[in-house]
Amino acid sequence: MNVILASTSTLFGGNYLEYLKDELITLFAGIDEIIFIPYARPGGISHEEYTAKARDFFSQLNISVKGLHEFNNPIEAIHAAQGFFTGGGNTFLLVKTLHELGLMKHLSENIKLGKAYLGCSAGSNIGGINMKTTNDMPIVYPPSFDCMELVPFNLNPHYLDPNPELKHNGETRETRIMEFLTQNSIKVVGLREGNWIRILGDEITTQGSENTRIFEAGKAPYELSPGSSLL
Amino acid sequence: MNVILASTSTLFGGNYLEYLKDELITLFAGIDEIIFIPYARPGGISHEEYTAKARDFFSQLNISVKGLHEFNNPIEAIHAAQGFFTGGGNTFLLVKTLHELGLMKHLSENIKLGKAYLGCSAGSNIGGINMKTTNDMPIVYPPSFDCMELVPFNLNPHYLDPNPELKHNGETRETRIMEFLTQNSIKVVGLREGNWIRILGDEITTQGSENTRIFEAGKAPYELSPGSSLL
Repeated sequence: MNVILASTSTLFGGNYLEYLKDELITLFAGIDEIIFIPYARPGGISHEEYTAKARDFFSQLNISVKGLHEFNNPIEAIHAAQGFFTGGGNTFLLVKTLHELGLMKHLSENIKLGKAYLGCSAGSNIGGINMKTTNDMPIVYPPSFDCMELVPFNLNPHYLDPNPELKHNGETRETRIMEFLTQNSIKVVGLREGNWIRILGDEITTQGSENTRIFEAGKAPYELSPGSSLL
Repeated sequence: MNVILASTSTLFGGNYLEYLKDELITLFAGIDEIIFIPYARPGGISHEEYTAKARDFFSQLNISVKGLHEFNNPIEAIHAAQGFFTGGGNTFLLVKTLHELGLMKHLSENIKLGKAYLGCSAGSNIGGINMKTTNDMPIVYPPSFDCMELVPFNLNPHYLDPNPELKHNGETRETRIMEFLTQNSIKVVGLREGNWIRILGDEITTQGSENTRIFEAGKAPYELSPGSSLL
């Protein structure tokens, strides 16, 4: 496989996908068109506008971008595509739409055959086994929480360390993931902003500027430095 | 109805339910036993230990507490009860358990007949129309997101204002609730910690130390001071 699952599309103070530019040149080498999957975006901007935002960025790499919503037959479009990019937004809306249109398994199949895939945030969550470790609000009810299982674990994008200053009784991210582990025996990769998971052939590694926090049932959470294997 | 739906069980630096003590004396006046619903708690402490924590507090009010998990027939127990308290934890786990045991509608019926109900956090979420505005992680898949609809709106407990200092690209609470409103035409009551909703007869008011933030489709979010009607 040839995949990047990134914590975020945009670093604080940066421009859209800017920090990933060199990586994306490698990921999409030899490709002149990709399909953008805009379904995570819950209003505010339309699928059309969201696709235009991706198109703007990829024009710098001489890669053209078509929105999956533009095709009358999205399943055929997925099978004909050279590569894919799924943008962030709300994971519940993304997963609901992919399941209802019957696209989840077709996307997964094509990526597992070696087509390049970039996911950011919600688009990264769907690379995991299921979406049960998303941070998003359940604004819609998907027919299933199952995802593409490109990796043998779950992701928590935008992973955020506890703020000891906060006088607030809501659960920390770490507490929420530990609660997930009481109900599921699935490893969780807490991806801080600035980090991504790279799948290249049979290797799965953590990459980026930050350490990555790993949660497994029955173990204390631990940190991996950039370049570490996630297998 | 005679109901309190509180943002949190515990204020920062305070003890369990302490800030609500005077209100609970009024809510449960004339009642010597309530049923505690411990299902939101995902491990860490058992249903037994969680019930003991509630029992400790209510012993000060001369009210005895039985855990709903102690009954062989929880439906009968709900119909025989004088009042109820649902503790916080994970809303997905609470809603899944209540639906799977067939308890959601029985609980709702009994509260709508006038039996006293206290909810905290996840226990307050289930007083809304549905759980689509919870902050919790979807660690399990409930058969439905529908809740008791004690109030004609949804709740967001532990409502947290955006932190302008945070150099992080995850969505703010306000952004998440605005995303909910793109998919649903249901009012959302953002309950800051220290606040609760009081249902007394036909009146529904916001109470507590903080203003309450209200979100409605097609309107800018606005604030209500304590004592305001939510109808």
